[in-house]
Amino acid sequence: MQAVFEQRIRMPQLRSRVVDATEAAQWVKDGMTIGMSGFTRAGDAKAVPLAVAEKALHEKLKITLITGASLGGDIDKKLTEAGALSRRIPFQSDPVLRAAINRGEVMYVDHHLSETVEFLRASQLAPVDVAIIEAVAITEDGGIVPSTSVGNSASFAILASRVIVEINLSQSPELEGLHDIFIPGRRPHRSPIPICEVDDRVGTSMIPIPPEKIVAIVFTDKPDSPSNILPADEETAAIAGHLVTFFEREVRQGRLTRSLLPLQAGIGTIANAVLAGLADSPFQNLTMYSEVLQDSTFDLFDAGKLDFASGSSITLSPEKGREVFSNIGRYKDRLVLRPQEMSNHPEVIRRLGIIALNTALEADVYGNVNSTHLFGTHMMNGIGGSGDFARNAYLSIFATKSLAKNGAISSIVPMASHVDHNEHDVDILVTEVGLADLRGLAPREKAQTVVRNCVPEPYRQLLLDYLAEANRRGGHTPHLLEEALAWHIRYRETGSMLPDGLPELAAA
Amino acid sequence: MQAVFEQRIRMPQLRSRVVDATEAAQWVKDGMTIGMSGFTRAGDAKAVPLAVAEKALHEKLKITLITGASLGGDIDKKLTEAGALSRRIPFQSDPVLRAAINRGEVMYVDHHLSETVEFLRASQLAPVDVAIIEAVAITEDGGIVPSTSVGNSASFAILASRVIVEINLSQSPELEGLHDIFIPGRRPHRSPIPICEVDDRVGTSMIPIPPEKIVAIVFTDKPDSPSNILPADEETAAIAGHLVTFFEREVRQGRLTRSLLPLQAGIGTIANAVLAGLADSPFQNLTMYSEVLQDSTFDLFDAGKLDFASGSSITLSPEKGREVFSNIGRYKDRLVLRPQEMSNHPEVIRRLGIIALNTALEADVYGNVNSTHLFGTHMMNGIGGSGDFARNAYLSIFATKSLAKNGAISSIVPMASHVDHNEHDVDILVTEVGLADLRGLAPREKAQTVVRNCVPEPYRQLLLDYLAEANRRGGHTPHLLEEALAWHIRYRETGSMLPDGLPELAAA
Repeated sequence: MQAVFEQRIRMPQLRSRVVDATEAAQWVKDGMTIGMSGFTRAGDAKAVPLAVAEKALHEKLKITLITGASLGGDIDKKLTEAGALSRRIPFQSDPVLRAAINRGEVMYVDHHLSETVEFLRASQLAPVDVAIIEAVAITEDGGIVPSTSVGNSASFAILASRVIVEINLSQSPELEGLHDIFIPGRRPHRSPIPICEVDDRVGTSMIPIPPEKIVAIVFTDKPDSPSNILPADEETAAIAGHLVTFFEREVRQGRLTRSLLPLQAGIGTIANAVLAGLADSPFQNLTMYSEVLQDSTFDLFDAGKLDFASGSSITLSPEKGREVFSNIGRYKDRLVLRPQEMSNHPEVIRRLGIIALNTALEADVYGNVNSTHLFGTHMMNGIGGSGDFARNAYLSIFATKSLAKNGAISSIVPMASHVDHNEHDVDILVTEVGLADLRGLAPREKAQTVVRNCVPEPYRQLLLDYLAEANRRGGHTPHLLEEALAWHIRYRETGSMLPDGLPELAAA
Repeated sequence: MQAVFEQRIRMPQLRSRVVDATEAAQWVKDGMTIGMSGFTRAGDAKAVPLAVAEKALHEKLKITLITGASLGGDIDKKLTEAGALSRRIPFQSDPVLRAAINRGEVMYVDHHLSETVEFLRASQLAPVDVAIIEAVAITEDGGIVPSTSVGNSASFAILASRVIVEINLSQSPELEGLHDIFIPGRRPHRSPIPICEVDDRVGTSMIPIPPEKIVAIVFTDKPDSPSNILPADEETAAIAGHLVTFFEREVRQGRLTRSLLPLQAGIGTIANAVLAGLADSPFQNLTMYSEVLQDSTFDLFDAGKLDFASGSSITLSPEKGREVFSNIGRYKDRLVLRPQEMSNHPEVIRRLGIIALNTALEADVYGNVNSTHLFGTHMMNGIGGSGDFARNAYLSIFATKSLAKNGAISSIVPMASHVDHNEHDVDILVTEVGLADLRGLAPREKAQTVVRNCVPEPYRQLLLDYLAEANRRGGHTPHLLEEALAWHIRYRETGSMLPDGLPELAAA
């Protein structure tokens, strides 16, 4: 144990800072802004946040919590239940926290994931008082080696006055060397970000901070929460099939090569299933420049299809996690984890020419996409990196199943009830029904293409009728304003978007 | 005249290509895609486009017309009236064309201005058959020296199979040296764009193309159409005042210096008036990194406030135009004109940390902005560069007068009828009533801030009532879907957004 201890804290004078989580949590005080590691449930601090929640049960303690993205281990749930969160930035996916956000009890600030640290660096958000960062080790110079995610950890540690490090013994020390920590300079005199290929390493392998800022070190051994994505099904397989057919056509027409372009896939079941679908495709020497690396990334490595993957976190199912992390050496030279500011940076995304695949909660006939709000009002998780990628991609693809709730909801509606990505940023819309290629089309053309390719009956005919009447009234983007949101209202009132009298749909 | 001729066409073997506009227009054939110079009415080709319109009156001729941005000289009007336009990309501002677009007769594809040439370069749009480019000269090597705009001209000339050059004798030969033509490489192996300061020159002073591509040269002498912006009024002065006060606070709080950060100002009366308002401010050594340079840019130069301005075009009022262009030498070392892909490039905008000021057609209480569609359906001009700048700016400001049509329209509505910029990309909303600082706020907080700071009565109370009821129903972004677009519907039906029974507003 002493050997492990010395291996994990290689700077001797820091070894005296080891305390338990409860003691470390004393650094967190009412009104503070806390920056925590954690991105898509990977590499989150696991002990101190829960000690903060416990502390909040006994004393007045309301904090602003900023993370990379979503946390695992019920941290957001327990902090919410303890009433510890006044403000939450920039992403979350916990049902208890989500309910509190939608009741207006927690102020949630939903950011493009590349932007949060820009706001912090420019003092456009309140400064981070304490950073709480999971690590696999602290180096000889006091540098922090992150674990399975980088997220915003590097900037939090650099910008915070005090840093608490959680060294997680369940995270393999072999993760060291996987990270590439590069922080852009201050504006207006910033230099170009030197990443020109997905595998370029441009920074350090640890987060360099003055060691005196490390006020506490806590040892933990709890593994990351595994991903909760669902296996591929008939519909996600159909979506993958449509995309493979589309990519093959692009290759035939000379716009793409067989190695396509660097791929990004948003978090979740659909994007993961589509990416996994490339394992059986004719494409090869693929690369990824993405945010979260999911099971499908390692499926593609194992299928010999993928040459390199750049991300900000690794989030895997329990089985895949056991397999990958016990053999991380096998993948290490083909992987890099970057700060989310870099994995999602507009500059790099536009330069590399990325094929971005993200999930739509709903889309409208004109190709405007809602990624975040149920019925225009209730937050799901947040926009995440979808905007960073969709705006700057070579090809911006949004996928969704055409129906939800056994057909009571159509994912394609006359007018999106909330717009996260407008028609300018959506090149391809794909459902299990088919694919709509919207490039170079005007809105009236987009609408016909979306409805005829992506929507099943009876919604297809309803949308065609809507468009026929809207087109008669005129406009560049014709709508019947009094009916534009009627489907959403009807669902709220009757439990179905379908008007009375139309036959029930079969279970989807 | 021979001397002028030789001065303007410095490569002798090209002198035999001089023809009249009618003959040059013969290169334009039915079904072609034509790329024309012109950005905010500046530097557009002036003779051949009208000859194309004339030709279309006598034979079947439907083209896809791509430009930099808007054209002057009634070109879009005459092409529309001649039925010559099947498709128009990426921006327009002509009333006759606009009406044809809204009738669904011309397919208009509204792009972020930085993106059109990315689509062309990647063959994601049909290739440009013929480029028609206004120039002040052709160099010894056959390079094209643009006139008062660069826009997309360089990429059009490089990508097109054939190029027609219009040499405009009314444009000062002294414009040569003003331009900086840099075209990014192909993806995925593109290098960083080397612009790190607003005054960096990274390219050539002319558009380098193989001279054999120049199939025709036409001489013209018609000046650019002047800008049609209105003078500052009480409300634009109030908007400028709110922004100056806000900038002063930012300086006091250490977030900005007295030279602020590079400024971008969208085209139009409001942005121009606000920028002009900085002439009487305490700020100095200002810089601009913008798209169109309007009267205010030169007012700021003359007031000794502005050190350097980078843009893609110069569009001035008649008086200002006479003054500036007859003394262009006085400004030349403080000006650069770039391709719009560069003036609007996300990479450069994010790197420099720009303060972006754009105009909203309407905004909703949550800070979602509609820049393009009247009542959600009818196109005005296009999104232009507002998305390029707002997404990537250090500070994204949208300005609008709070009322239109003598108070019958509130520019701040419950739900925007079309979303071009969502709440993620809008930091500051300002009207003549006041300024809402939305940074770091959750939607429920944004709504109160917008309504209390930016909206006059009686709309203010109507919005507060709407929000109170919506908040009771819950959600992260509370709305009453059945009332969200009711103001727009009511205006269409009654000529006013105000419900019956409320007193008429005084003329705004």
